[in-house]
Amino acid sequence: MSAGRYVDARRRTRKLFEPELGGTVGYYTDWFIMALITANVAAVILETVDTIAAAYGPFFHYFELFSVAIFTVEYLGRVWAAVDDPAYEGPISGRLRFASRPLIVIDLIAILPFYLSAAGVQTDLRFLRAIRLVRLFRLLKLVRYSSAMRSFGLVFYREKEKLLLALFANVLLLTLASSVMYFVEHPHQPEVFSSIPASFYWGFITLTTVGYGDVTPVTPLGQFLTGIIALLGIGLFALPASILAAGFMDQTDDESESEYEYCPHCGERLK
Amino acid sequence: MSAGRYVDARRRTRKLFEPELGGTVGYYTDWFIMALITANVAAVILETVDTIAAAYGPFFHYFELFSVAIFTVEYLGRVWAAVDDPAYEGPISGRLRFASRPLIVIDLIAILPFYLSAAGVQTDLRFLRAIRLVRLFRLLKLVRYSSAMRSFGLVFYREKEKLLLALFANVLLLTLASSVMYFVEHPHQPEVFSSIPASFYWGFITLTTVGYGDVTPVTPLGQFLTGIIALLGIGLFALPASILAAGFMDQTDDESESEYEYCPHCGERLK
Amino acid sequence: MSAGRYVDARRRTRKLFEPELGGTVGYYTDWFIMALITANVAAVILETVDTIAAAYGPFFHYFELFSVAIFTVEYLGRVWAAVDDPAYEGPISGRLRFASRPLIVIDLIAILPFYLSAAGVQTDLRFLRAIRLVRLFRLLKLVRYSSAMRSFGLVFYREKEKLLLALFANVLLLTLASSVMYFVEHPHQPEVFSSIPASFYWGFITLTTVGYGDVTPVTPLGQFLTGIIALLGIGLFALPASILAAGFMDQTDDESESEYEYCPHCGERLK
Amino acid sequence: MSAGRYVDARRRTRKLFEPELGGTVGYYTDWFIMALITANVAAVILETVDTIAAAYGPFFHYFELFSVAIFTVEYLGRVWAAVDDPAYEGPISGRLRFASRPLIVIDLIAILPFYLSAAGVQTDLRFLRAIRLVRLFRLLKLVRYSSAMRSFGLVFYREKEKLLLALFANVLLLTLASSVMYFVEHPHQPEVFSSIPASFYWGFITLTTVGYGDVTPVTPLGQFLTGIIALLGIGLFALPASILAAGFMDQTDDESESEYEYCPHCGERLK
Repeated sequence: MSAGRYVDARRRTRKLFEPELGGTVGYYTDWFIMALITANVAAVILETVDTIAAAYGPFFHYFELFSVAIFTVEYLGRVWAAVDDPAYEGPISGRLRFASRPLIVIDLIAILPFYLSAAGVQTDLRFLRAIRLVRLFRLLKLVRYSSAMRSFGLVFYREKEKLLLALFANVLLLTLASSVMYFVEHPHQPEVFSSIPASFYWGFITLTTVGYGDVTPVTPLGQFLTGIIALLGIGLFALPASILAAGFMDQTDDESESEYEYCPHCGERLK
Repeated sequence: MSAGRYVDARRRTRKLFEPELGGTVGYYTDWFIMALITANVAAVILETVDTIAAAYGPFFHYFELFSVAIFTVEYLGRVWAAVDDPAYEGPISGRLRFASRPLIVIDLIAILPFYLSAAGVQTDLRFLRAIRLVRLFRLLKLVRYSSAMRSFGLVFYREKEKLLLALFANVLLLTLASSVMYFVEHPHQPEVFSSIPASFYWGFITLTTVGYGDVTPVTPLGQFLTGIIALLGIGLFALPASILAAGFMDQTDDESESEYEYCPHCGERLK
Repeated sequence: MSAGRYVDARRRTRKLFEPELGGTVGYYTDWFIMALITANVAAVILETVDTIAAAYGPFFHYFELFSVAIFTVEYLGRVWAAVDDPAYEGPISGRLRFASRPLIVIDLIAILPFYLSAAGVQTDLRFLRAIRLVRLFRLLKLVRYSSAMRSFGLVFYREKEKLLLALFANVLLLTLASSVMYFVEHPHQPEVFSSIPASFYWGFITLTTVGYGDVTPVTPLGQFLTGIIALLGIGLFALPASILAAGFMDQTDDESESEYEYCPHCGERLK
Repeated sequence: MSAGRYVDARRRTRKLFEPELGGTVGYYTDWFIMALITANVAAVILETVDTIAAAYGPFFHYFELFSVAIFTVEYLGRVWAAVDDPAYEGPISGRLRFASRPLIVIDLIAILPFYLSAAGVQTDLRFLRAIRLVRLFRLLKLVRYSSAMRSFGLVFYREKEKLLLALFANVLLLTLASSVMYFVEHPHQPEVFSSIPASFYWGFITLTTVGYGDVTPVTPLGQFLTGIIALLGIGLFALPASILAAGFMDQTDDESESEYEYCPHCGERLK
């Protein structure tokens, strides 16, 4: 194969797997890969139902072979063709840098267990297949460039200090509440409130208002404190919700804030 | 009957059942039908209470006969008179097109089971009557043209991209959380976390903070993960609430922003 | 007693019990009555604790005698002096009209049971005393004229159409969800989902995300539907919260919207 | 030691422990103390896990000796050096005033139990160590001067009247709901709804939508009332969340509203 044809094949391969380049083929490949990922996730989920696993075991097996084959070809193709991107020049160093990008590592993690198991490494097969679930993160690509995603990113970025403070206040509240409840309830329920870390489980379940009821106070003092903490826990909802609401509102304002682009008196541009 | 009187009767029938045409009669018919639907729903609900069913069985039976009769007359009348609407011209094709409108199909579904059962088709009578519950959707007519409904529609329409993204993020979180919890808890509670789909029930109940407590983690790792997931689940509330709040606010701004674009005294532009 | 002194005593009595008239005495009487109501509520609550009731029974008895005496004097005094208010003229008709005002009726309801019981009507004494709890509503007077209360009232008034629509949507969702769950779960849990009204209890507890766990679905279909309904139930929170947030925001805008009181070009007043 | 060197040592000590003075040394001391507090909290928490306490008992013991030593030096140093601050002049009265500042009292409470126990006062050792948790409040220093904290403070301050009114309304609702439920459920569940105070526990857990399920209504009337109260309880979330959202929004407006009061080009007033 001449060098020109080799480079040409590499360029086509890149176009095939990188939809960002804008090619029609890349667009269809992308959707096919996305659909295959979704089908894989569905397969992993359904396989855990005993009756379905018993009835369709061979199908799941062949579907896995097929999926891993496609994902392997995609992985190798992308790494091989990466050097065409000026950012990843250098036949070995460039490809290594490309291969260590988080999403590419995820792609490797998703297929590696299959080969390890085929090579004789003993593991729980179901768990191995489950590792393919990490590819779910690839689906985030679907929304990465949407304006809603940009909007979310901007609001979270702007309000990050307030959101972190709300988180800090909640961690403090959680630590104090869980510790106090341990000392109040431990003598009466040594099994349930066995330690402060165990008490944290109660704290999380109560402050988030999930309230399973598997860990509940039995002493009057513990019940009184729980009431107060549940009330404070409402702040856990109210604070982030209101911070985000103000953030989304603020952003909408920015977009529509076109008034007074020019001074109404002298006509000079203001912004 | 002469063609003129036939057409006239059809026109009156249409006025009787289509309150949108603005007739006084149609207005009263409409309220009567709405009240009858509400009474039917109440009957279906009360009939499931054994003591009430035992005491008032015959009443419920006659009330059903009466209701189905009225609803049948209404259904036939509307289909028959539909051809007067220019949109549904053609004695057969027009009426068929009218009869396949969703709300009209719901009206048929509500009365058909009664005739099927009368015709000897064996079914659970209670369930048959329950099908009348579908008519509840007819009550939506009451709010269809209110300004609040328009306002809701507009806000949901404008913010649909953000709301869908919030839903997408939650489905992703739910899938990952439920799968991970299956692998963590299944070995210790094979009955409760029997499969990933079963684990989704836990995921929904936890992420929405309902927290029945019929499915709870028992391993320390599972409890730790549950705490984290419950905390993330708060985003499930905070995101849509804050998106909608900004949406409602934005809309209010729009409504009040049109005043005084020009000075009402000198005619100069203000903004 | 001369008519002049009688009228004068009536006027003073009115000043004593109507703090709205602005007298210093009325101000202190008012606070004394409010404190007595709060103490009465505390007494009713504490009296239900057996150990406290056993230890302080006589005290509660004398405190009740004292409270009822004060409340009786206040009630009679206010009704007697009401005729001084031009709105309640007429020695009998005016006083009757005054006595049928909701808050005055509540005051009568709070003391009447004591006299009925003293007159030999057999009733549960504890329950009788509990009726004094209705006076809690008198405490609403404390906030009636605050600017925060006006603000709440205004926001609820402006947004009432949207809030009612949100309520309507939730009642519809609740009715459908509870009915469907009855048909799905009744065959498997005839005791728990015994009727649709009983199923409404499940619906309320699930849609509000309280989730006690005393009524939970056991069928896969029921669990799937519960997940969907819990997800929809989040709207139950998100809608009113976002409507109110926009309402409060809107109101703040109104207050600060002093810009452009005069046209910056011709100087004419705009509002 | 000459007076000059004594004063100089005191000044240095103050710089060492008061990071607010801006010295580099104080900055590092501050971070060291913060880290030590965090490690102490972690130690208190982990010590309650029996297996960890058994395995690392001596380590926890020596770590406590070390921590108390450092905290004692810090406490004595700060009190001793306080007189250099003009606000705390007077060798005894100034130091006493300094020592009675809340955060300084907390520091004393955190170390005192150790010395009491060493002096032979009999107490539960674990509980004694737990008292060090009070130092968690010192961590609040980390966020005291952040702009997010100022923002929170401002919003809570401005909206305090509305937030208090929301709290007042909820306390009223809670009192009425708990009392009514006591009278409805007590005859059927004398153990669970044993008194109104016990019933308050049910009220808190229900109104905050925690819903453990350890206290639930069993009578149809009680279940109906619970449904209504759970629905009203949603206001408990919606009100503060929407008040805070409007508050945060309002504040953002203020910050961005100061621009361009005058045209930067011609100097004419714009607003």
